[in-house]
Amino acid sequence: MYCYKITLAYDGTHYSGWQLQPNASSIQGHLEEALQKITRTPVRIPVIGAGRTDAGVHALNQVAHFKITEPLSSQQLLLSFNGLLPKDIRVKKIDEVPSSFHAQYDAKGKEYHYHLLLSRVMDPFRRLYAWHMLRPLDLSLMREALPLFIGTHDFTSFTNEASSGAASRNPIRTLFRLDLHEEGEMVRLEFEGNGFLYKMVRNIVGTLVAIASHRLPVEAVPDLFAKRDRRATARAAPPMGLFLIAVHY
Amino acid sequence: MYCYKITLAYDGTHYSGWQLQPNASSIQGHLEEALQKITRTPVRIPVIGAGRTDAGVHALNQVAHFKITEPLSSQQLLLSFNGLLPKDIRVKKIDEVPSSFHAQYDAKGKEYHYHLLLSRVMDPFRRLYAWHMLRPLDLSLMREALPLFIGTHDFTSFTNEASSGAASRNPIRTLFRLDLHEEGEMVRLEFEGNGFLYKMVRNIVGTLVAIASHRLPVEAVPDLFAKRDRRATARAAPPMGLFLIAVHY
Repeated sequence: MYCYKITLAYDGTHYSGWQLQPNASSIQGHLEEALQKITRTPVRIPVIGAGRTDAGVHALNQVAHFKITEPLSSQQLLLSFNGLLPKDIRVKKIDEVPSSFHAQYDAKGKEYHYHLLLSRVMDPFRRLYAWHMLRPLDLSLMREALPLFIGTHDFTSFTNEASSGAASRNPIRTLFRLDLHEEGEMVRLEFEGNGFLYKMVRNIVGTLVAIASHRLPVEAVPDLFAKRDRRATARAAPPMGLFLIAVHY
Repeated sequence: MYCYKITLAYDGTHYSGWQLQPNASSIQGHLEEALQKITRTPVRIPVIGAGRTDAGVHALNQVAHFKITEPLSSQQLLLSFNGLLPKDIRVKKIDEVPSSFHAQYDAKGKEYHYHLLLSRVMDPFRRLYAWHMLRPLDLSLMREALPLFIGTHDFTSFTNEASSGAASRNPIRTLFRLDLHEEGEMVRLEFEGNGFLYKMVRNIVGTLVAIASHRLPVEAVPDLFAKRDRRATARAAPPMGLFLIAVHY
């Protein structure tokens, strides 16, 4: 078997998310369909992603792998994929890797960015790529809260894993880095961690926005962690502000 | 009569262009429809733009004006427009102006930007906002050609006015500035002039790309101007790379 690691970017706006679903347009589905055409195989070959992204979530460098029985050149594969895929999904890089490589299990860490837009009027070019804040945010409060999320925690209060049917997964994760960058009217929250639970970034962003909107005191964060209950925390931030930036191996 | 100057941004992807057309979704049409709802008038009130943008062309600061018989606060008008307009059209600013103001006739100059993307693989987030070059460009040749377009010229060879049914317009225009900026894999061509003929920016960009692709020598540009014939020049650049940046009064 020949194993290939593929790095891809996609605009998640028009997709049901990464994961293959019947009667829905998924990133994984488009990749597997293209791969079946390229290899002319009678059955679909699975394309395994480093992680799932939800409907409307974007990726600059999602990683996946697949295995085929006949070798193909990486450059030829890249051109074939991009010739067959919709234009809002682009394969950026393909490398042949040892057949032991697994995009999900071998991932050592991931980086996500979340974009908030603080303009008085929504920027029409960012409507699908940022969460527009209708009211001003107190970013100094948000900055104060960031360190409370960094480190190793039980993130049960900040995941919807229960509703995703994966409740039994270990809820302990380590957040290496959580930085806030201001660029004009844009605020970019940068998350880097060893792994992320379902909706974890969006739930943390929702809580940070509640804090910066004076709807939740900074001091409440340790209590939220301790409660181990998703219902205690703020609403998740919407998907369009979220970007998977990198998967580290 | 009360006259209002309105500044707006739009993503032109899903529109037939600025100009009102029967059975098509135009920016002007959406604005007039919203204004009719706001003022509750039985007939449409014209919203006059500084200039037309084509289907797929974007605007960061298009300017228009309209006149109504009852005064309304600018802030109220802005909120009402943005409540009624599609999300990819946003009114950024409304000012009451003297009733002599005319968005088109009073314009002293305009600024357009055109975006080229030189990446090996198309960036899915720029597919609707830049022209992706399939082959490398020789930007030093493009830079050499820029000064040949600056100044006052008869731009007949660089307009499709004839096909737009406005052939009798004076084809003399002055280009104050034409700069090239490189930002990573993006090239931004900045045009500033006292006015632009139909498809003039896109035709000049098409010619600049032909030069940078070694399909046309820099020395041919004066001849192209002299020919006064659109058919002599390169194909127009596609609309999605073009942005109306500012209208100066």
